[in-house]
Amino acid sequence: MITNRKLSDPRARELFDEMANWPIFDPHSHIDPHRPAARGIDEILGYHYYTELAHSAGMPAELVGASVDPDVRVHHLSRYLARLDNTEQYAWLVELAQTFHGFSHDQITPATIDELILAADHGHDGSAWDQSVWDRSKLEAVFLTNDFDDPLTGWDTSRYIPCLRTDDLVLKLHEPTTVERLKKATNVDVCDLASLRIALGSIVEYFVSHGARACAVSLPPDFVPRAAATKRAVTPIRRVLHGLDLRPDELVEVRQTVFWMLAELCDDHGLPFDLMIGPIRNVYPAGVAGGRDLFDRRVSLYDYRELFNHFSNVVFPVSTLSPDASAELVAYSWIFPNVIPMGHWWYSNVPSYIAADLTARLQAVPKTKLLGYYSDAYKLEFILPKFNMYRRILARTLATAMEERGWTMDRAMDVAKRVLRENAVSCFSRQSRGSRTSRYEGNEKDAAFSGI
Amino acid sequence: MITNRKLSDPRARELFDEMANWPIFDPHSHIDPHRPAARGIDEILGYHYYTELAHSAGMPAELVGASVDPDVRVHHLSRYLARLDNTEQYAWLVELAQTFHGFSHDQITPATIDELILAADHGHDGSAWDQSVWDRSKLEAVFLTNDFDDPLTGWDTSRYIPCLRTDDLVLKLHEPTTVERLKKATNVDVCDLASLRIALGSIVEYFVSHGARACAVSLPPDFVPRAAATKRAVTPIRRVLHGLDLRPDELVEVRQTVFWMLAELCDDHGLPFDLMIGPIRNVYPAGVAGGRDLFDRRVSLYDYRELFNHFSNVVFPVSTLSPDASAELVAYSWIFPNVIPMGHWWYSNVPSYIAADLTARLQAVPKTKLLGYYSDAYKLEFILPKFNMYRRILARTLATAMEERGWTMDRAMDVAKRVLRENAVSCFSRQSRGSRTSRYEGNEKDAAFSGI
Amino acid sequence: MITNRKLSDPRARELFDEMANWPIFDPHSHIDPHRPAARGIDEILGYHYYTELAHSAGMPAELVGASVDPDVRVHHLSRYLARLDNTEQYAWLVELAQTFHGFSHDQITPATIDELILAADHGHDGSAWDQSVWDRSKLEAVFLTNDFDDPLTGWDTSRYIPCLRTDDLVLKLHEPTTVERLKKATNVDVCDLASLRIALGSIVEYFVSHGARACAVSLPPDFVPRAAATKRAVTPIRRVLHGLDLRPDELVEVRQTVFWMLAELCDDHGLPFDLMIGPIRNVYPAGVAGGRDLFDRRVSLYDYRELFNHFSNVVFPVSTLSPDASAELVAYSWIFPNVIPMGHWWYSNVPSYIAADLTARLQAVPKTKLLGYYSDAYKLEFILPKFNMYRRILARTLATAMEERGWTMDRAMDVAKRVLRENAVSCFSRQSRGSRTSRYEGNEKDAAFSGI
Repeated sequence: MITNRKLSDPRARELFDEMANWPIFDPHSHIDPHRPAARGIDEILGYHYYTELAHSAGMPAELVGASVDPDVRVHHLSRYLARLDNTEQYAWLVELAQTFHGFSHDQITPATIDELILAADHGHDGSAWDQSVWDRSKLEAVFLTNDFDDPLTGWDTSRYIPCLRTDDLVLKLHEPTTVERLKKATNVDVCDLASLRIALGSIVEYFVSHGARACAVSLPPDFVPRAAATKRAVTPIRRVLHGLDLRPDELVEVRQTVFWMLAELCDDHGLPFDLMIGPIRNVYPAGVAGGRDLFDRRVSLYDYRELFNHFSNVVFPVSTLSPDASAELVAYSWIFPNVIPMGHWWYSNVPSYIAADLTARLQAVPKTKLLGYYSDAYKLEFILPKFNMYRRILARTLATAMEERGWTMDRAMDVAKRVLRENAVSCFSRQSRGSRTSRYEGNEKDAAFSGI
Repeated sequence: MITNRKLSDPRARELFDEMANWPIFDPHSHIDPHRPAARGIDEILGYHYYTELAHSAGMPAELVGASVDPDVRVHHLSRYLARLDNTEQYAWLVELAQTFHGFSHDQITPATIDELILAADHGHDGSAWDQSVWDRSKLEAVFLTNDFDDPLTGWDTSRYIPCLRTDDLVLKLHEPTTVERLKKATNVDVCDLASLRIALGSIVEYFVSHGARACAVSLPPDFVPRAAATKRAVTPIRRVLHGLDLRPDELVEVRQTVFWMLAELCDDHGLPFDLMIGPIRNVYPAGVAGGRDLFDRRVSLYDYRELFNHFSNVVFPVSTLSPDASAELVAYSWIFPNVIPMGHWWYSNVPSYIAADLTARLQAVPKTKLLGYYSDAYKLEFILPKFNMYRRILARTLATAMEERGWTMDRAMDVAKRVLRENAVSCFSRQSRGSRTSRYEGNEKDAAFSGI
Repeated sequence: MITNRKLSDPRARELFDEMANWPIFDPHSHIDPHRPAARGIDEILGYHYYTELAHSAGMPAELVGASVDPDVRVHHLSRYLARLDNTEQYAWLVELAQTFHGFSHDQITPATIDELILAADHGHDGSAWDQSVWDRSKLEAVFLTNDFDDPLTGWDTSRYIPCLRTDDLVLKLHEPTTVERLKKATNVDVCDLASLRIALGSIVEYFVSHGARACAVSLPPDFVPRAAATKRAVTPIRRVLHGLDLRPDELVEVRQTVFWMLAELCDDHGLPFDLMIGPIRNVYPAGVAGGRDLFDRRVSLYDYRELFNHFSNVVFPVSTLSPDASAELVAYSWIFPNVIPMGHWWYSNVPSYIAADLTARLQAVPKTKLLGYYSDAYKLEFILPKFNMYRRILARTLATAMEERGWTMDRAMDVAKRVLRENAVSCFSRQSRGSRTSRYEGNEKDAAFSGI
């Protein structure tokens, strides 16, 4: 098996080989369900990881601009890839090319790029290619990230599971198009707090009735959730809905209010609310598309205490962006039943950070609460190499636990199953308030996630 | 030897086996000297680590409430333990049960819990059981955490060493009972700054004369020690002592003033002042008893500079709560003679955090300053498995130093001795100002701690 | 080879042995080019690492004061060295003594110190000894840290490469001597913003014309670069140049303005601007010389976003002081073309921190951007043992990459070459704006650094 070659410990290899047979349940991605797999290599190399790293290594952003012909864009990029061939992101790319396109080289260079362009051309295969990547990757379910006005139609929502992304509502309600989109999507004449609540409610209901299993939002480091105070919020909300200018404190109020309403709706509908904490958008405006966001590491989950306490029935799968914030998430997941550490996100999605964090989570957080990994992918092809990276790290970490903690292979395998799949299946399967409220009544069996 | 099975490196095993013969000197615990060992398994399973992790994994807090019958409580908990059997805390429990109760299983479950209840029932053995655990653990001395009004009588203070916990005085002087307790304990009519100083002085004197070897306090992340300014403090102190309401800035002033007075008293009496930096109390009020506190990771030792500079003759053994704050403690211990890194506390008491932190301390802080570990235990039985966890990490870390740094076994063993025991013995043995002021006069020998 | 004994993995040993043959290009040091190597062991043991660690371990600062006779000072220190013989800093010392002075012991103690004093006495060898250390260390180039009024004459600037240290200008313009020194060095009657700009420009031009290859500055954690606003700055600048008192906000304005001017001059002259972020001076005033500075870990590169965006043509090699800040630097280097992670500085220059950080950089930052290491040394003798420490860590890290990532020896060796030398050579070789602006025109070859 090609992908276990990097594991020298026989226990790790055995663990990996077993995991490689399991279906992949991917609880967070940016896949377009209408066009899940890439039709050509440009859609793969256009992933921001490659364009931003190549740009960081000296490639002018214009060389991969939207107006450049896809083949030319790919050629441009190929000239810079050698500069980043040490990165793990590059390793995903090579594994992807070898796995899905029969690419026979170890490096993607100007000399080999044409071969790859040809091999990856599936412009005429359409959904057959999607299915082929799906099968080869042993995908079971892939969560999407849907805008609030996505009609959610035209695909199999048992495979591509809707997830309501609420960033626009929480963070961009003051931008003119948002309110228009909201009115159009809900047919509600959104003009004040009450009608806003109705509109948001109808969005969430629509999503739930169309198979959504989670809400999600990415929040900047200075965002502090606060219980909505109608009195305080009523004027700013009215102003924002009428397109009037807001003072900074009013914008804060608007964001807090919308966020809190959404948490209430998650509570009403039994939806987990994925919190992705940390990014600041457009820190480097001259960067390539998707490669402009960074963070301020001075962030703490302490700012979320009121939220976690108030919504004790809402599960919050939490991802933090700054790698040095990960130990705090271990502590908060250890104490709060409804705080669940989820995956390893973006700037933290680096093997050495994952390994350190995973080891700590496995030592200090109940195994039923660990949501191991999600791909965050834009194209199906990336899910397998990214999960394989994680599986290798998990296999090594569990092999070390066998060595240092005396675990048996069965015990390691049990943990692997939960962390990779069962916890996520369980966490995101609960949909009605009814099923949730019954969860403490006799159901202490050790079979599945019971975060709260 | 059962407890070295997890060490595959023969050098690590040799180091561990040697360490396992040494007496344990435990410089911080919450042992009740009147009832040090557990009379039954409920006192073991009632440790907040288990109730809070089980609660975090889905167990309702009521199931282990104070009003529940102990045996029922234990049965409740046993149904949830499988969910956290991956944690290191669970590993302590199994090692404890196997070592002290002859428990023959690997897992504590509803099927095996009755066996354990029976085996751990020492309700009729009284102090003989205490002695048995003491002997089996090879305990030498265990530091307590005593309230300021503890009479400190009724036990052997050469075994169970008093330590003055000052949290109530520093942080809760504004709570009505504190002043009453202080008056009662000291017979001082505490009513202003001068009488407060007299009362605190008499407390410290009482403790020192009853064998106390340290003061200790746990401080929230926003606490900033500041030199007392009588002028500024006189009114807030008078108000707090008369039970009047305080403005927030007055409360800050009161806390800073009391803390500074206590540091002065440590200076006067040659007492180390243990600083345990970071916890915020009651962040999750609905949690189980002992499982409600967390932290804000945005904390820095820079806030303590005035204290460390001013009290150059006071040794400050420092524990930090947020794992990501540990590298700063390495730097401050490297520069300040009176800053001593002490153990691995609570949310940092996780093997992967300990290992990373210990490696750095061993590479950058003088070996005579390292206070390796303390148990923080509430019952004697926990001291051995917790120290064994640390000993295994220390053994592995030293075996790596032998491999990567060319250390001999003798050298590794010498470091182990200091880190585990000698430094603590030395640090906490100095009691009179006289002996301290002579410390620079010719005593540069390499035999013991000489932090300042 | 003595220095590879600590590497048990044969691949790591092969990598190290090869690296040990390469010339050392050291892009940051504090070497005095008039007296680069030590004339006696006191100049070695006087390095602040030893005096501060010994002081931290109990040695009174007075024992190594400036007024103490050098031989006596060395004897004093030798009595305390055993206390810190576990530290990596001590390991440099022993390797240094063995390599350059034929020291045959493993420990430097009162019993062996006289032998070392004798062996290290090169008071009469003068520059022949400098040359001997240079050759033995295989040095190629060593960057200096020159005051702005250093005449830069009297040495071979192709070996000892000038670097303009701008701390005095940015942070101490309000101290009386700075303006005087500036006037004297430039012959400009510095009295307002315009003349200040002329003076700074003439300093930078002088440095460039005398072979300088970089500017450098160390900045406290609360420093936030901000675009100069002439209107706002004109009065504070005039006041500071006339020696008038400044309000705190005016001092901030002055610092920001001078810093921004220097960045503009780096832009004009194609000079990299080394940013060394984090130290706070004199946190422990009673410490030994050089051992008084520490940091506040609450720092973020987010504060530098305006700088990095505005000066897209200036390369910023960045060192951060707080070890826990290193992951943020990985992210900023991954996104900003002009942010380059440089070495492992001071409190981060500890093997375990280096290893963790290096692994992450090798996984997530383009290999052409990694400036592996600099010595920060005050005496030539330290460069080799410090680089050897780094080479061992790099060798181990690359051996792990061969194991876990399937890299060939050639690939590992290629990365080693870039990280250790080629990237630094390339980064610091660009001197004229002309050569920089041509950098995007066809020069995408994979041969060298092209950070921007």
